[in-house]
Amino acid sequence: MNLRRKTLLEDKKPWLLDEPPEHAVYTTGMPDSAQGPVISPAPSPEGSLDPSHIEKHFESSEIVRDIIIGLSDGLTVPFALAAGLSGAVSSSRIVVLAGLAEIAAGSIAMGLGGYLAARGDAEHYVSEKKREEREIVEKTHDEEEEILEIFQQYSVSRESAAPVLEALKQNPAAWVDFMMRFELGLEEPAPNRAHRSALTIAVSYIVGGLVPLFPYMLVADNGFALQLSVVITLIALALFGALKGRVVGTGWLRSAIQTMLIGGIAAAAAFLLARLLEHNS
Amino acid sequence: MNLRRKTLLEDKKPWLLDEPPEHAVYTTGMPDSAQGPVISPAPSPEGSLDPSHIEKHFESSEIVRDIIIGLSDGLTVPFALAAGLSGAVSSSRIVVLAGLAEIAAGSIAMGLGGYLAARGDAEHYVSEKKREEREIVEKTHDEEEEILEIFQQYSVSRESAAPVLEALKQNPAAWVDFMMRFELGLEEPAPNRAHRSALTIAVSYIVGGLVPLFPYMLVADNGFALQLSVVITLIALALFGALKGRVVGTGWLRSAIQTMLIGGIAAAAAFLLARLLEHNS
Repeated sequence: MNLRRKTLLEDKKPWLLDEPPEHAVYTTGMPDSAQGPVISPAPSPEGSLDPSHIEKHFESSEIVRDIIIGLSDGLTVPFALAAGLSGAVSSSRIVVLAGLAEIAAGSIAMGLGGYLAARGDAEHYVSEKKREEREIVEKTHDEEEEILEIFQQYSVSRESAAPVLEALKQNPAAWVDFMMRFELGLEEPAPNRAHRSALTIAVSYIVGGLVPLFPYMLVADNGFALQLSVVITLIALALFGALKGRVVGTGWLRSAIQTMLIGGIAAAAAFLLARLLEHNS
Repeated sequence: MNLRRKTLLEDKKPWLLDEPPEHAVYTTGMPDSAQGPVISPAPSPEGSLDPSHIEKHFESSEIVRDIIIGLSDGLTVPFALAAGLSGAVSSSRIVVLAGLAEIAAGSIAMGLGGYLAARGDAEHYVSEKKREEREIVEKTHDEEEEILEIFQQYSVSRESAAPVLEALKQNPAAWVDFMMRFELGLEEPAPNRAHRSALTIAVSYIVGGLVPLFPYMLVADNGFALQLSVVITLIALALFGALKGRVVGTGWLRSAIQTMLIGGIAAAAAFLLARLLEHNS
């Protein structure tokens, strides 16, 4: 991926504009045998696809992906912050205040930062595309060389790549698209996606962040609220991790354990740090 | 980009394993005329590159990129949290505690989360590669069709693409690499990069997060500490934004303004929310 594009996307929002390519293949990551009946291989007639090769995929909607992104951070950082603070202050009012302030700050940083970055990314794509369009006219020979060089990386000789080059030259629009994807590694950002995506992520962050705070809102005793918050949030992290593992195909158990681990370690570290500071002050 | 890969990378760490392709082109994003003397076009002899086409690039090291990622979040969220809290509590001790707890939580979530995600990503790459290696042997015909389909997206006919297919078939390793990149959109993760990258990001987050907290540590009066923190952090955000704009090529002024804007809005929202809650409780 291009550095400029990557960093334009600021920090954590590279997916905002990253539409999966239309031919992308999403597998559940489970062994084929677990994914339903497998059609046994049949001799494939020339020119048609082998039916056994019908892979079982499903396409998770982009909204699900954005929800995962927001929930994942929302469940982790406000949880750890609240746990950390409750190791040092006795008032759950302050824990709730700090937690809500963090949720406001984090959701805005994720949402607004992501939106601005996505817009910059879209502009970057347009300007790079204009440049390619100019270059295939003004620097035709160099652009031809670049195509041949792309193929040479895969041990395809100039002679073998020549017919592809000729075909692309017949269709300048396809040529530009080819260069955008295969030379620069850029995919066209979907219009208007930035708004919706940024909003979905921000809202998911808020929802995720409220889970660990509820006990502090409802229970006056800070120590008991902390225990409740830890239990509730670890369960939420495990459920969310398992669900995420199913959706993205990493296996639910591993994903559940990892998600709990990150939240748990972050919370433990924040708790110990705050307690240490409190005892030394 | 593949959904599974994207989400495996959890949330904000897709760059952790994303080595830029060797042929990636990094421009400074400035108009060519601003980038130094332009060699005037010369008639290009067949088979050699036009010298005017030497683009002015520079490759920003990956460490710089990771530092940017960590600093960007570190300067924003702890700043906003501290500002928010100081709108509601009178003790700067609590602001410092909450800020440090947030830095601990955020840096661990970013670092550890990124590390685990990167490891999962590396495993995903290996398993997808094994699958492609198996498929070009077991489902040769289908894989051939897939190559022709990739080219058809760019209006390259089966006949024109056939020599490329033949060349790839002569070299199974190159064929697999071609499918990984052009069918699945996956690039090979660099080994051991995950450790270093996660650590760099976490440390940068800590450094960035300490900037807005210093005034609260040094000044007893919370209101004055807040003012100092706002001034210092907005200056830091502007400098950092400008530097980032130069490095990634978005233009320093725009980047400086955007970076300040995100931090400022997040802090203002957190401040108003906390004050509102405080007045109503």
